[in-house]
Amino acid sequence: METSHPGNIGAVARAMKNMTLSRLCLVSPKVFPSAEATARAAGANDVLRDAIIYTSLADAIADCHIVLGASIRDRRIICPQLTARECSNKFTTSEQEKSTIALVFGRENSGLNNRELDLCHYMLRIPCNPDFHSLNLAAAVQVICYELFIATTQRDDVHKTKVNTSLATGQQMQFFYEHLLQTLSDIGFLHKDKSNSIMRRLYRMFNRIELETKELDMLRGIFRFSQNHNKKQGL
Amino acid sequence: METSHPGNIGAVARAMKNMTLSRLCLVSPKVFPSAEATARAAGANDVLRDAIIYTSLADAIADCHIVLGASIRDRRIICPQLTARECSNKFTTSEQEKSTIALVFGRENSGLNNRELDLCHYMLRIPCNPDFHSLNLAAAVQVICYELFIATTQRDDVHKTKVNTSLATGQQMQFFYEHLLQTLSDIGFLHKDKSNSIMRRLYRMFNRIELETKELDMLRGIFRFSQNHNKKQGL
Repeated sequence: METSHPGNIGAVARAMKNMTLSRLCLVSPKVFPSAEATARAAGANDVLRDAIIYTSLADAIADCHIVLGASIRDRRIICPQLTARECSNKFTTSEQEKSTIALVFGRENSGLNNRELDLCHYMLRIPCNPDFHSLNLAAAVQVICYELFIATTQRDDVHKTKVNTSLATGQQMQFFYEHLLQTLSDIGFLHKDKSNSIMRRLYRMFNRIELETKELDMLRGIFRFSQNHNKKQGL
Repeated sequence: METSHPGNIGAVARAMKNMTLSRLCLVSPKVFPSAEATARAAGANDVLRDAIIYTSLADAIADCHIVLGASIRDRRIICPQLTARECSNKFTTSEQEKSTIALVFGRENSGLNNRELDLCHYMLRIPCNPDFHSLNLAAAVQVICYELFIATTQRDDVHKTKVNTSLATGQQMQFFYEHLLQTLSDIGFLHKDKSNSIMRRLYRMFNRIELETKELDMLRGIFRFSQNHNKKQGL
């Protein structure tokens, strides 16, 4: 709604595209298009290019089924409030797939007026510092688009990041600990009366690390070098 | 790290304060202070005023227990990855209350280099559009600070027991790595041409472990025993 700073429009386009959204509607922007918007879009030129300009919010949301108004203000007439996360969980279900949903952001300084709020089904709120609660426009768009992206991508299969590592097996760890014990003994670090508590600490530490086989091999290489020094010395 | 655009520094300060964070450290910013940073901070002047400027990341994180590096890149040697939400859930428990945690953001264009990544315990990732994955610096800070704020305000840790552990600080870890490097050199394990890749593996491994100071002391004790043998042998 009536965005003052063209830089914010560019930053909004970037934030949207970062989170796979593309349909940007501008209601009476003060300056648009502009070089500053393009610069801040940082490559989201398609979003800017395809942006549609309207002269009223009513026109912009004409084909939308659900209208969510971002707001930090308390209003006399209260419509239901949702946090960004609640909203994202509510409106990314498969039931909502065929709904067109509008996210409405007000002016940088004064937000949405009452007439515009009347068009909203829900107020959308980003939890934040009560003593410093005005987010930058593009930052607010970023947070909400991010929440929508997370809710959408997590709705399908739980998206796990596969890390292609090969963890050491229990047996490999057993050999590893035997080797460690022998090495510590060889270099004179272990005293018999304290060896149990020291080894317990080391178990705890190396178990926590979840060693990969490559790392385990490297460490055993280090052990061998320590032992060799000791053997040479003993000769 | 070496932020190019002062406007981004201001926007970062605002994003932090929106989410009740206040401790901003700048490593070699290109332009700071600046009128543009102050304008974009939009009232988060205290965060800018109290920002501390460092010349290296190592100095900036010297007193930190856990270091999280924001990254979108795939790296050859992988340290554990966390999404913004996983990170927020992991590090806002009461167990972590006494830990000082650093969130590290790289340069606008090139992120963090390998030497800086070596100092990180985790990579921090914001899920987003795989075809347009570069978020604006301040937008990335906004999302991560937002997730931390949500996790902190929603956390329910009444039933969690406090574990009184004392994690090693960044500076202690730096001394630890220096000692490790010297030890590996003394026992003949390190070859000059391969030492970088080996040390990188060891950084990844020991950063992952989140060493407690007691464990660190014990390991350095082991290093000393390994070294002493070598010294005696040289006599």
